[in-house]
Amino acid sequence: MYNKDLKVIDCTIRDGGLINKWQFSDETVKKVFTAVKESGIGYMEIGYRASEKMFSTKEFGPWRFSKDEKITEIVGENYDGDLKLGVMVDIGRVEADDFAPAENSPLSFVRVATYLKDVDKAIALANIVADKGYETFINIMAISTVSEHDLHNGLKQIEAETTVSAVSIVDSFGSLYPQDVKNLADIYKSGLSEKEFAIHAHNNQELGFANTIQAIESGAGYCDATIQGIGRGAGNCCLELLLGWLKNPNYSLEPILNSIQEVFPGLRDEIEWGALPAYMVTGILNEHPRTAIALRASENKDKVSDFYKQLTTPECLNS
Amino acid sequence: MYNKDLKVIDCTIRDGGLINKWQFSDETVKKVFTAVKESGIGYMEIGYRASEKMFSTKEFGPWRFSKDEKITEIVGENYDGDLKLGVMVDIGRVEADDFAPAENSPLSFVRVATYLKDVDKAIALANIVADKGYETFINIMAISTVSEHDLHNGLKQIEAETTVSAVSIVDSFGSLYPQDVKNLADIYKSGLSEKEFAIHAHNNQELGFANTIQAIESGAGYCDATIQGIGRGAGNCCLELLLGWLKNPNYSLEPILNSIQEVFPGLRDEIEWGALPAYMVTGILNEHPRTAIALRASENKDKVSDFYKQLTTPECLNS
Repeated sequence: MYNKDLKVIDCTIRDGGLINKWQFSDETVKKVFTAVKESGIGYMEIGYRASEKMFSTKEFGPWRFSKDEKITEIVGENYDGDLKLGVMVDIGRVEADDFAPAENSPLSFVRVATYLKDVDKAIALANIVADKGYETFINIMAISTVSEHDLHNGLKQIEAETTVSAVSIVDSFGSLYPQDVKNLADIYKSGLSEKEFAIHAHNNQELGFANTIQAIESGAGYCDATIQGIGRGAGNCCLELLLGWLKNPNYSLEPILNSIQEVFPGLRDEIEWGALPAYMVTGILNEHPRTAIALRASENKDKVSDFYKQLTTPECLNS
Repeated sequence: MYNKDLKVIDCTIRDGGLINKWQFSDETVKKVFTAVKESGIGYMEIGYRASEKMFSTKEFGPWRFSKDEKITEIVGENYDGDLKLGVMVDIGRVEADDFAPAENSPLSFVRVATYLKDVDKAIALANIVADKGYETFINIMAISTVSEHDLHNGLKQIEAETTVSAVSIVDSFGSLYPQDVKNLADIYKSGLSEKEFAIHAHNNQELGFANTIQAIESGAGYCDATIQGIGRGAGNCCLELLLGWLKNPNYSLEPILNSIQEVFPGLRDEIEWGALPAYMVTGILNEHPRTAIALRASENKDKVSDFYKQLTTPECLNS
């Protein structure tokens, strides 16, 4: 009834922070950390790590930087590490000096987010971080826009030149259908031999959970989820749905439901995410959700039919 | 890129009416009818038909009864029938006299909703209606609670004793996963030979669309959807998502997006549906959503963790 080797990575604060510039209260982060720890899933990506030289600490909250000291404030001085903590990094937005040797950090893992065209840079960054003792991953964003041939080559290169645990299918535009995930899983498996593949699904078409199921059934070793699917735009696969399906006796749904009851009504009042029609439109059109995010921030936020016409009229397409 | 033989049945007013006792304004029903007609999908279930002897016309709106005269008010006197119109009936809630001969009615089809245990009554009712000239269907509700053996026998009986076009998998509790749909599709195909199978999915676990995709990929001849997934509790498969996926050149997404823009913001203000955590809980537990509907109507509506504990404590289970 469950895939006991599958590893689930919670990204609630990291991906949710894309909506509110990582301005979560310490209380919220502590409650989410506690819920994820008690759920037993084992991995939590607590934020991005970025250089303070490149981003304003006034504009962005602490989980844009996820400094070791800040993490320790949340998890305590003598953290047992039962729940492995990690951060995401973007190429060019972090420097080697931003990472202490892993034995001096509460972090266990680092995930490098990249576009396929930048795979050489991603490999270099992953190797720098791996040399400091962290478990590493590479996440290939905007996967719905790459050619299968280029993807296969990029995966072969990652396989040969890194020590990452897994490479992730990232459906940035929320445009994949389960059949597409199955097809991509085959390409990932053909390009990778010792490394696993993973999935990070978006919910534009209410397929975040279904695509995650499909990836797991196709052999994914890792998958991402967030509580209530929180994440930029349409959001992600819901952790609670995934736990309900997995029926892994080592996982517990109750702590996640507790956090939904205690933390999420307040968050829902402050920030918006979910499978709204505007995000469905960009998903169907295989486009970045930025236009839909702008629509939702405007007074025309419910004018989804006008929005679709704008995106599909020839003048717009040719511009 | 599309399954050209698949038939899509819109149930927006019929299933949405379960939330508001079918108290839609004529203007809303006209707009939905026009949108569905222009979308080109070909089938619309406009309401239930029930006997006025059994239900109060004061309590229930017109689409609880869907009388021929009322339908004609919406579609016009000389309706061309391009969009086939149908109603759903429940066993014991309608009488033979409630149907005129089909040639005198704006209706083309009738769907009999039944529990598997009542399949003999469903067959009798379907045959009465078929004798009056209507295309008929049987929808087997609460499919997640029946034994495979009983189901196979029931399907064989429907195959032998009726002229229905299709028999539907109805995931009343929203508890099915795509693998379950695939398994049920195999059972339906093994029990039916000349008749097709169909799917009516619920969205408790954000799988309404994914399960519909799975059924179509498994060979379903008909599937149900509603605009914005409107329907009791968590609601249904979204028609707009389905059209985006099907890419059938005979179907048009724009009229549906128009109705989302014009009609649905108002409906969302009046009535609630969607994949809320309370409905996820009953879906995971394979239970009727009635307890979740009651929770959402109470002051504890967001206490999903308490709700889960109530439903899973031994005292509750043994009561």
